[in-house]
Amino acid sequence: MKASPDASASLGQLRVQFEAWLELKMKNLQGVSNELHAAMSYGLLDGGKRLRASLMFATGKALGLNPEVLFDAACAIEAIHAYSLVHDDLPSMDNDVLRRGKPTCHVKYGEAMALLAGDALQTTAFQWLAESTLLPPLVRLEQVRILAQASGAQGMANGQAIDLAHVGKSMSVDELTHMHARKTGDLIAASVRLAYCAKEGLVDTKANLEQFAKALGLAYQVIDDILDVEASSEVLGKTSGKDAMSNKPTMVSLMGLQKAKDLLNTLEQQALQACEHFDEESRSHLVLLTEWITKRKS
Amino acid sequence: MKASPDASASLGQLRVQFEAWLELKMKNLQGVSNELHAAMSYGLLDGGKRLRASLMFATGKALGLNPEVLFDAACAIEAIHAYSLVHDDLPSMDNDVLRRGKPTCHVKYGEAMALLAGDALQTTAFQWLAESTLLPPLVRLEQVRILAQASGAQGMANGQAIDLAHVGKSMSVDELTHMHARKTGDLIAASVRLAYCAKEGLVDTKANLEQFAKALGLAYQVIDDILDVEASSEVLGKTSGKDAMSNKPTMVSLMGLQKAKDLLNTLEQQALQACEHFDEESRSHLVLLTEWITKRKS
Repeated sequence: MKASPDASASLGQLRVQFEAWLELKMKNLQGVSNELHAAMSYGLLDGGKRLRASLMFATGKALGLNPEVLFDAACAIEAIHAYSLVHDDLPSMDNDVLRRGKPTCHVKYGEAMALLAGDALQTTAFQWLAESTLLPPLVRLEQVRILAQASGAQGMANGQAIDLAHVGKSMSVDELTHMHARKTGDLIAASVRLAYCAKEGLVDTKANLEQFAKALGLAYQVIDDILDVEASSEVLGKTSGKDAMSNKPTMVSLMGLQKAKDLLNTLEQQALQACEHFDEESRSHLVLLTEWITKRKS
Repeated sequence: MKASPDASASLGQLRVQFEAWLELKMKNLQGVSNELHAAMSYGLLDGGKRLRASLMFATGKALGLNPEVLFDAACAIEAIHAYSLVHDDLPSMDNDVLRRGKPTCHVKYGEAMALLAGDALQTTAFQWLAESTLLPPLVRLEQVRILAQASGAQGMANGQAIDLAHVGKSMSVDELTHMHARKTGDLIAASVRLAYCAKEGLVDTKANLEQFAKALGLAYQVIDDILDVEASSEVLGKTSGKDAMSNKPTMVSLMGLQKAKDLLNTLEQQALQACEHFDEESRSHLVLLTEWITKRKS
């Protein structure tokens, strides 16, 4: 199964449309003080691969949904992702000064404002879901539930906390897999779920998409661990080799580079297998994003 | 209009029931790593006046609602309040080491874990609303909207950002009123709104409750400013005189102590007037909480 150049072009076009929508959403968030609005926009706009939004659209395409009905929910998941990056970069967490080749939010706006910007980006995600008119209320309430579960105390924040508690300590592959699933995988999987919950009556399809979501979520972190030791700071646009230097357990440190690459390959096959359920055109964006994630160099 | 001892006893009893419910909600939040769960619980449980939850129940009582249908939403607003306190106390914000007479969350659990606990408490608020079975889905989606608007970029976080941008700078009474309304007032007002949105067809009542909510929200901050210069650290359970020392504009610094007290009195009258709409028994908890806020010594 291979992604076509057409798929890449059409997904790229969708991303441009989505980016404009996201900018408009921020512009329409009125009554926000200048400093806070600027710091939130800095964290959310003009950068990032929009992987989570793209995964939503790719899932929607596989299910025959109009991508535009997913735009507000895609804004919400990108806002959650942006909040997590702004807070992760803070001095008390990863203390990163560079993100996507630019100074991190707290370097530019100060630590207190970056904290608030992250807080407000999280809230805005739920506000956008609640205020949206693109999908029926029951779907949007379900999306609030999906996004909260994936990003909160049982999801992403939990992964961060497990990570924090294990710096300098040993961890088994199972423990690391669990941590990764919470820290990164849950939000990746939520992208798929946020889209399929907009479509009714999908028993078989749902199981396939769940398999796809889980494999891809873990693959994303495995390639991250591989890139952390293989890629340079220049290509990554952030400080590399950080995890290795700070003695954090990674898939590479636990199983070695070759076995991590083998695992990545297995996860890629699992994700692609789960897509076979759909016809070639419908699955084209899911295949493209799977390739994109597992073959990425930065 | 005066609060009765009966009102105080029945509201007190309700608070005990609610506290047990809140503890159960935290206990049922499963799959959370020990450290994160402990830090979240430390910020949320065993302390605090539960003013926002109580205001919800008082509003529900005025409208003839069973308080128990509001329990999950009350947990949600208390979680939002708790998150804001945990983040406010952080070194990059107010750098407070004492809260309710106990070490603040970051003093006890470290800065990174306190940041995550605050983040996760916010998410949990929305998760509890989305997962609740106590109210119909449409009401809960509206509650997500109310809570997000009141606490996010247009509400509480905005007030914090305005505050941050004005340390050491002058501010007019109007600007300070606007800042207070966002920083504290919106969440107080949201307590009233979260309850009345559960009841249908309330045009006049809604206007009265809006007047009540706004007056009380501002009163809460005015008395805070008065107490900041009048009360001792011992009574407050937190560092007092901090605002005055750090040159932050307050109602007292801008209009003087006497005029601030006059304003407080006016706001109290406005709040009580708005309650006249209800019969004596129905309004009893609203009257009690108004007295409690405007006459408090800490």
